[in-house]
Order: sequence, then structure tokens, then C-alpha cells
Amino acid sequence: MTAKSPLHPVPSAGNDASPFFVRHGVDGGARAGTLHTAHGEIPTPIFMPVGTQGAVKAMDHRSLTELDTKIILANTYHLYLRPGNDVMRAMGGLHQFSTWNRPILTDSGGFQVFSLRELRKMSEEGVEFRSHLDGSRHLFTPENVVETQRAIGSDIFMVLDECTAFPATHREAQTSMELTMRWAERSVRRHREVDTYYGFPQFQFGIGQGSVYPDLRQQCMRNLVDMGFDGLAIGGLAVGEAADDMYATIDVSTSVMPADKPRYLMGVGTPENILRAIELGVDMFDCVMPTRNARNGTLFTTRGRVNIKNARWKTADESIDPGLDVWADRNYSMAYLRHLFQAGEILGLMLATQQNVALYLWLTRTAREKILEGTFRPWARETIDRLMAPRE
Amino acid sequence: MTAKSPLHPVPSAGNDASPFFVRHGVDGGARAGTLHTAHGEIPTPIFMPVGTQGAVKAMDHRSLTELDTKIILANTYHLYLRPGNDVMRAMGGLHQFSTWNRPILTDSGGFQVFSLRELRKMSEEGVEFRSHLDGSRHLFTPENVVETQRAIGSDIFMVLDECTAFPATHREAQTSMELTMRWAERSVRRHREVDTYYGFPQFQFGIGQGSVYPDLRQQCMRNLVDMGFDGLAIGGLAVGEAADDMYATIDVSTSVMPADKPRYLMGVGTPENILRAIELGVDMFDCVMPTRNARNGTLFTTRGRVNIKNARWKTADESIDPGLDVWADRNYSMAYLRHLFQAGEILGLMLATQQNVALYLWLTRTAREKILEGTFRPWARETIDRLMAPRE
Repeated sequence: MTAKSPLHPVPSAGNDASPFFVRHGVDGGARAGTLHTAHGEIPTPIFMPVGTQGAVKAMDHRSLTELDTKIILANTYHLYLRPGNDVMRAMGGLHQFSTWNRPILTDSGGFQVFSLRELRKMSEEGVEFRSHLDGSRHLFTPENVVETQRAIGSDIFMVLDECTAFPATHREAQTSMELTMRWAERSVRRHREVDTYYGFPQFQFGIGQGSVYPDLRQQCMRNLVDMGFDGLAIGGLAVGEAADDMYATIDVSTSVMPADKPRYLMGVGTPENILRAIELGVDMFDCVMPTRNARNGTLFTTRGRVNIKNARWKTADESIDPGLDVWADRNYSMAYLRHLFQAGEILGLMLATQQNVALYLWLTRTAREKILEGTFRPWARETIDRLMAPRE
Repeated sequence: MTAKSPLHPVPSAGNDASPFFVRHGVDGGARAGTLHTAHGEIPTPIFMPVGTQGAVKAMDHRSLTELDTKIILANTYHLYLRPGNDVMRAMGGLHQFSTWNRPILTDSGGFQVFSLRELRKMSEEGVEFRSHLDGSRHLFTPENVVETQRAIGSDIFMVLDECTAFPATHREAQTSMELTMRWAERSVRRHREVDTYYGFPQFQFGIGQGSVYPDLRQQCMRNLVDMGFDGLAIGGLAVGEAADDMYATIDVSTSVMPADKPRYLMGVGTPENILRAIELGVDMFDCVMPTRNARNGTLFTTRGRVNIKNARWKTADESIDPGLDVWADRNYSMAYLRHLFQAGEILGLMLATQQNVALYLWLTRTAREKILEGTFRPWARETIDRLMAPRE
């Protein structure tokens, strides 16, 4: 029914002549490229705002579009539980259900099930878990997670993986990574057996694990490369390891990834983390940090970090971030935003979220410009210093 | 400092040749007019969305402007406690503080202090109360409530009144009303003694009390008329009395109001209440109902009332209210809005609030058109039936 609705333009199935990923330039390890999907092109490096349940928290689609959001992330675990695959199929997939017509990437839910700890049971077949909503029992397998993501109709989707706990011994990490590899093979096989539901291509990414052990990370990533995924992700980071271990792990992972496949670092991180990972050759990012921190009153601005609840902003009649053009026209003052937080107003969450998402999108957009100009590294260093410091 | 900010255009002080209120037409008891303020014209009848703490809950200024909000209401009690008069003065008043550049009406806080019950103590001088935020003691007097509203710089402001408890005996209601009258005289006197802070006129409204006793209501309103207020309000309704008593009280109140002064029914109510009160000669309305009900998932639409959480909307691929042009372009479906409520997403509160505010603004805007056409009564009857029924 939905395909006929005038509210829901159906994208073309894409031009088969365009490869999924094209690189336009490199600057040291950093890369600039474009992903081609049925719902639009995605310039890389790119930050993907997190819309776990099919909505970026406290933002509407128009604001996302105005900030030039190219792609959002949604979560298979959450959407499987609610609204469920039956609703998703009936509505013609998440694009039509949500009327978000730009690209969507779905995480597989592996990380969320991993976070349930007490409520899950791993086996070769898959992972059994209890819903955090109502305690009901469910089984995720590599195959049915592909199926759920077919129902969602995301442009890019992730395989089911086991996010290795941290810390893990080498043996534990190896055992876990090998399970992830067997699941990855099953995921590829299932994806190749089935057609997409809604007439446009869905691209499948593998996820590398191996904790902080370079040999495991490399072995894992080489296996994934051989499986022929459309893109490759680095999972299992920002789970408690030292920053240096995280960067080293990114480095060993990207070093064995082919240049012609997009590279996605999952769930990371601060503006500094993102710029340093770009320098290590990563193309795609998601993180709850900008949206979650916004709701706690922590703002990222081009002039540094701000705790908007601080009394020093009480009568600050200045705009929130004059360094971001897209924001300035909204014209709210720091003092008013502080009042909104003090008073517990939803508008405070809305404005702070817009600021942080705008900042993250500006970050990857500008990184791309600098890569194409060949000035990425000095810009990144200066930007890290400026953004990560407390705002004066 | 703020007067010089390019973000904050300072309005002209108004054209002295324009009277505050002009009537353009009547249709039975219903009136169509225009209020002239320094921050813009307000066509009447008008609904004023409630922004208690200086922000309409879950809406940004742009959405309010797009829905053609002409004036918002804020509350003296809340703004006095937070951010406080010192911040308000430093920021140049609520318009500059919030960057809401259209008209603002402030309630005096009488109703809020009345709601504190256990925390307040009435005297001839004023009302002593404890803050609901931190338990600190404060005294509101007619004079200092004028002062706080000077600091806020609202275009229209209300006197301090005692909202008579319901039920009340005739004697209790009379005693309370007489106190309100003495306070009203003090309020007028203070307002005439002082200049406004920010260079534009502030219009002062009196508030009628008298519970559901026609003789007290008429006596009270006649006194207020004699005091020469810029406008007249009917207070102390929708506090538990029968609907018929409410309408009868509105009727006896408007019957003694002069035709050339605007009439404001405070805190009322449903679309039916509003249309019936317009027929009884009321011009201005505020109520938390559209915004509060929205956050509970109750939508007002031109096709009837909706509980968006109901399972019947689970796969409803239809727009939320095709009867409202301004809304249709947002293109969200009922099914997605239901999902957002089920999932506890802030976006659900945002979209539902926009719908209900749009509906209430459409209601008074259309009422005005029908009054000017001379077709108000049949339209109002049909509209009440349509809006108040559950949506099919």
C-alpha cells in the first residue's frame, strides 16, 4: 500500500554503473570518498547521527536535513522488539514508516544484546536473550538478523557479531572472534540467497573483533575481506580499553583493509577520536555522544566544550556557536539555553542536540574538505585543541 | 547591552494613533478584533499557547511562528523564581532573553500560588508562599507583581488576584473577591506610577473573581471596568465547577464588560469550551490542554480526538491531520507517531504538541473568519461535533 502513497517517493534502484564506494582523494592515511545508495550519496568521512529506535532523540527530520545529515543509524535490536518486523513489513520498511528519505544504516543489535549481560545466552546457533522491555525470550541468529534488516530495509546493514567483553584474555578474544567469523560467513550466505524486499540494494558490512590483540584483529579483518563484504567495520572498541590501545587497534585493522572498501568505526567517539581515526583511514562514524551529552547539557562547539548549566552562562547574551553558520540563524542565546536546562524544558534538549549534531557533521564535512585540499593533518591538530578545551 | 545586539531588534514604541483594541465585526455575541502591541498585531479571537517558563513545552520558536502563533503566555510566578528578576533585567526582558519577538502575555502568578495550598499564607498585604523548587519564602504583593512583570517586559500583564477556591460559600467568595478588588486598585495605582523598563507599552488587565455567583461576578467586573484597565479577564473558572455554571459565569461577566475592551478567559479549555465562550463574547484564551494532552498522546485533529497510543494506529499510513495545511507538509504518519510514543521518543512529544497547537490556532483563526462572514454559530456547532468526537 505504501508504495502508492504520495508521501513516500520510492527511490530508484540505483544506477548499476556507479560502484558503491568511490575514493576521491587521500591525504596521508585519511581518505575522502562517496558512498552511493538508492536514497542518496554519502560523502566520506561521515558522521551518522544515532536514531536507535528510528528517530534521532529530540530532533525532527527537517532539522536533520537542514544540518545536512546524510545518513542516520538505527538499531536492529530495538526495531525488532518495537515496532516489530510485522509492522515494518506492513509499512514498507523504515524509510516509509519514518518518512526519513535519506540513507539509513542499521546496526545488527549484537552490541545491544552484549550489553544485556544477565539476560543473554550465547551458542553456536546464535544468542538467546530476554527483552529489556518485557522479559520475553528471543533468539538472534546471523540469518534472522539479516531477515530483520531486510524488513527494515536499511541501505547499509551489519552482520550479527559477538562484541567481545573487555578485558579478555587472548584465548577468550580468539574464541569470541572465531565465533564472529563463523557468523559472518552465515550472514554473507543468507544475504546472497535472498532478495531485498523493497526494490533497492542493501549493502552488507562485516564487523571485525579481536579485542586489543593485533594478531587477532588482523586475522579477523583478513577473513572478512575474503568474504567479499561491501564494507568493513571495526567493532568492540570504546568498551573500556586505553585510548592508545584503541588507536593501535584501528591502525592494525585499517592496515589490512582494501583501499576500495568503506571503513566504519562503530560507536566512537569524541571529536578527537574521530579526527584521529580519520587520519588512520576510517571513513564512517556513529556515536551517541553528541546526542546523549546534549541531553546532559554538555555542548560541543567550535570554540570548545561547554557545560551549559554552569552559572557563568547565566546572562551570556551570545549565540551558542557563531562558528556554525547553520546554527547561527536560530539565534538562541547561551543564557536562554541555560535557563531551559535549569527549568527542565524539552526545548533545551532540542536545541542542545541540534548544536552537537551540527558540530559533528561540520567536523566530518570539514575533514573531507581538508583531505581534498591536502591540509588535513595540521587542521586536525588545531581543531582537536580548539574543540576539546573548555570554552573560554 | 542587549538593545544593541543585532539578534534582538527593538520594536518601535507603537503608534500612539492606534488604539490598543479595535473591533472589526460581531456575529451574535461573538466578536472579531485586533490587539495592537509593540511586538505585533494580534487578531482576535486568539488562542495563546502556554510557555510557562518562557518556552512552549517541546516546541521551538520557528515552529510556533510557522503555525502563526501571534502571542504566547508566560508565568510571572515561574519566571520570578527562575531565572529571577535580576537575570531578566540584565537580559533586557523576556523578549530579548528568549529571542521570541512576538507578543507575550504574563499571568500574575496568582493562580500558581493558589495551587500551592499548603505552602501559602494570604494577608491584606499579599500572599506569602514557599517556592515549589527549594522551599524558600517569598511574598507577592500587587505592587511587586507589577514590578516583576516590568522586569519581564510582557506586552500584556495581569494583576495579582486571589483565585477563589471551589466550592466556596457566597460569603467566602465575596470576601475573596473584595480582596482581589483592593489588590486590583493597588495594581492600577502602581502601574500608573512607574514607566516601563524597555521603552514599549505594557497593557494591564484586571481579573474578575466571584466564584459561580452571578451577583458577585457582576459587581466585581463593574468595579474592574471603573478602574480603567486596558483589558478584562475572567479568572477562577475551570477549577471544578459544572460546565453550565462556567458558561453562565462567562455570560454574566461579558454582559457587563464594555464592548471596546478585550476580554480574556483564563485557563479554559477544550475546543468546545473555546467556541462556546467566543459565542459569549470572549476574545482571548490560554490553556495547557493542547500542549499537556499532546505529551500524554491525546491529539486534537480536525477529524476528531485521537489516542495515538491505541493499537488501531499501529500501521496507519495516513498523515496526522490532512485538514491542517500547515501540518501536512511535515508528512509524518500516524503509525510512526504511535511508535514514537510507544518508544518514549522526545520526537513524539514534539510532533503531537505541534499538532495540538496548530489545531487550537486554526480554531480561533477560523472562528474569526466565520465571525467576519456572519456564519459563526452554524460553523461552531458543526465544528464542536466534529472535533470533540473520537476520530473514526
